[in-house]
Amino acid sequence: MSVTAAKGFTAAGVAAGIKESGGADLALVVNAGPRRAAAGVFTSNRVKAAPVLWSEQVVKGGAVTAVVLNSGGANACTGPKGFQDTHATAERVAEVLGHSAGEVAVASTGLIGLPLPMDKLLPGIDAAAAELSVYGGEKAAIAIKTTDTVHKTSVATGPSGFTVGGMAKGAGMLAPGLATMLAVLTTDADLDAGTLDKALRESTRQTFDRIDSDGCMSTNDTVLLLASGASGVVPEYDAFAEAVRAVCADLARQLIGDAEGAAKDIRIEVVNAATEDDAVEVGRSVARNNLLKCAVHGEDPNWGRVLSAIGTTSAAFEPDALNVAINGVWVCRNGSVGEDRDLVDMRFREVVITADLAAGDASAVIWTNDLTADYVHENSAYSS
Amino acid sequence: MSVTAAKGFTAAGVAAGIKESGGADLALVVNAGPRRAAAGVFTSNRVKAAPVLWSEQVVKGGAVTAVVLNSGGANACTGPKGFQDTHATAERVAEVLGHSAGEVAVASTGLIGLPLPMDKLLPGIDAAAAELSVYGGEKAAIAIKTTDTVHKTSVATGPSGFTVGGMAKGAGMLAPGLATMLAVLTTDADLDAGTLDKALRESTRQTFDRIDSDGCMSTNDTVLLLASGASGVVPEYDAFAEAVRAVCADLARQLIGDAEGAAKDIRIEVVNAATEDDAVEVGRSVARNNLLKCAVHGEDPNWGRVLSAIGTTSAAFEPDALNVAINGVWVCRNGSVGEDRDLVDMRFREVVITADLAAGDASAVIWTNDLTADYVHENSAYSS
Repeated sequence: MSVTAAKGFTAAGVAAGIKESGGADLALVVNAGPRRAAAGVFTSNRVKAAPVLWSEQVVKGGAVTAVVLNSGGANACTGPKGFQDTHATAERVAEVLGHSAGEVAVASTGLIGLPLPMDKLLPGIDAAAAELSVYGGEKAAIAIKTTDTVHKTSVATGPSGFTVGGMAKGAGMLAPGLATMLAVLTTDADLDAGTLDKALRESTRQTFDRIDSDGCMSTNDTVLLLASGASGVVPEYDAFAEAVRAVCADLARQLIGDAEGAAKDIRIEVVNAATEDDAVEVGRSVARNNLLKCAVHGEDPNWGRVLSAIGTTSAAFEPDALNVAINGVWVCRNGSVGEDRDLVDMRFREVVITADLAAGDASAVIWTNDLTADYVHENSAYSS
Repeated sequence: MSVTAAKGFTAAGVAAGIKESGGADLALVVNAGPRRAAAGVFTSNRVKAAPVLWSEQVVKGGAVTAVVLNSGGANACTGPKGFQDTHATAERVAEVLGHSAGEVAVASTGLIGLPLPMDKLLPGIDAAAAELSVYGGEKAAIAIKTTDTVHKTSVATGPSGFTVGGMAKGAGMLAPGLATMLAVLTTDADLDAGTLDKALRESTRQTFDRIDSDGCMSTNDTVLLLASGASGVVPEYDAFAEAVRAVCADLARQLIGDAEGAAKDIRIEVVNAATEDDAVEVGRSVARNNLLKCAVHGEDPNWGRVLSAIGTTSAAFEPDALNVAINGVWVCRNGSVGEDRDLVDMRFREVVITADLAAGDASAVIWTNDLTADYVHENSAYSS
């Protein structure tokens, strides 16, 4: 159901010809109201794509009536012309729908440094507008795929009768900073922009912000949350935030599960840290250790590489108090050899690495993937 | 010539049986004096191997008469027993040579978390001592190899008649922090420990500390500089420091050229930075970008990934003032498309990426490698 699960939203996905493959590459999501409240989080990369610079300004206004998204080109590092193209894209959507361009968010994804084929993109907007439907959520989710092998959608229903739905894309360049890909969430709850912003930031901080497939941060990451108010329900904040968090977590898990070339999804649980920041720092350091990621690919419970990664952080811990479990087997105890590594079964796709810092009671979970020859192959051939 | 190029040093390399392959795995370097001054730099990883903890204390004394190095086992994360093993190793060397164990540095390299086979290592020391020779430098360099395909040695001669020689090993887990592998440098210059320390720190900061093959920092990194004074020459500081720097730079370049699974050596030149720290931060961020490393492997001049990596740093720059050249072709000008990427020739092993921050006049060079299926293969099978 994706972005059209919540009342008040229509969507469409079409093939505009931006992708050379001829696949679907343009999505439109429209909020019919009565409310048009919105919030967004964007990449913290200082090299930001034109659509990010544009949409940051749109979201600051607190109202979004439509989101137009394209795959097949990131419109990043494209200079003043790139920004003009984003502006023209928003204007065309505004014209077709009879809204203000200042309430049209734009998101792009694909290769950096290539201009968008506007002669194809603009007619694609007209085609998408003609297809807008309350059943269009899946097609929109499909149209934003790049190297994704499957489209990603999620829905949560709140106790008081509101719905949060969402779609996301992202298969490479998954790393933290804020969001980590393109995602649009919609809800029919009747809430203002400030409340949406709070719920979205809290949710992304613990979900999208903690998936770190390859340590590479995109120039285009965008997560939007739009509220139509069409359910007439004004939910309790906690219930609403929980629904947003559930959709974000579900989509984030789907992104990790579809990461480029990956054969394993690695859940890194850091426990007994002095602070949550310490736990996140350690989790990220482990997640970014190429040698460990190779070892997991080889189903090798190489806990020495976990300790080596922990040792590069500034987190509070004593080296001879560290414990590490892989899939529940405590292969490292007190910084040294623990249970027999031959007890570790790593045949399944999901691998759990638990790092016990023995320094407090804070914890965090970071997700990453293994490093594979397929990842190398996919990313050495991408733009050629 | 290696560590025996300078007068006053003998060395040996033998097969003690630590490696299951039966290859050479134990090296001994002995300073016959008249001086026995020494300096060392060690991994900044907080999880330090037992020999690092031991040798840090030895070097603090300012005098080293012998260095014993083994491959086939890192003696890291081995608990109190590991430290006892290092101590026993130093004691055996001291006993055989008639020196104090407090002047014997120990270095180990290999898999983390496995105890050393002391029943093989200790007799190996006796065998190495029996082989000590002024011609033993090459054999010592061979004995410290792990996944290195070639042994690495270098020699520089100073204008006033002194010599600096050295050997190094390291093919994976090459990343900064201080040193990045095992290296022993020797000189017959007549200098005290304080002068050696200054020259060694200045040199490693700009050489070993700026090679970053895979972003992974070892638990065992050790670089030692020993002076015998046997030439009778007390060189000018600058001439001596230059010779040390030359040997370190040569060895560092050899390490990058032999990095595990690599097919390209990537020289990242960051120019026109506001500060040297900014230049190093940007160079490292580019060096650690897996997507870029894959692109270089595919001979794809994907400058968007360079900009994306620069954008994650805190260095001073304006995104629309950034320029990037790959092998001399300025494919990115003012943060946008520059010269035709088809002009870039990436067929050769060495690839030069120049990042112009347009923010000052500081610069730095960081070396890294491409990311390859062979790297994945070699590191997913390492401990199995």
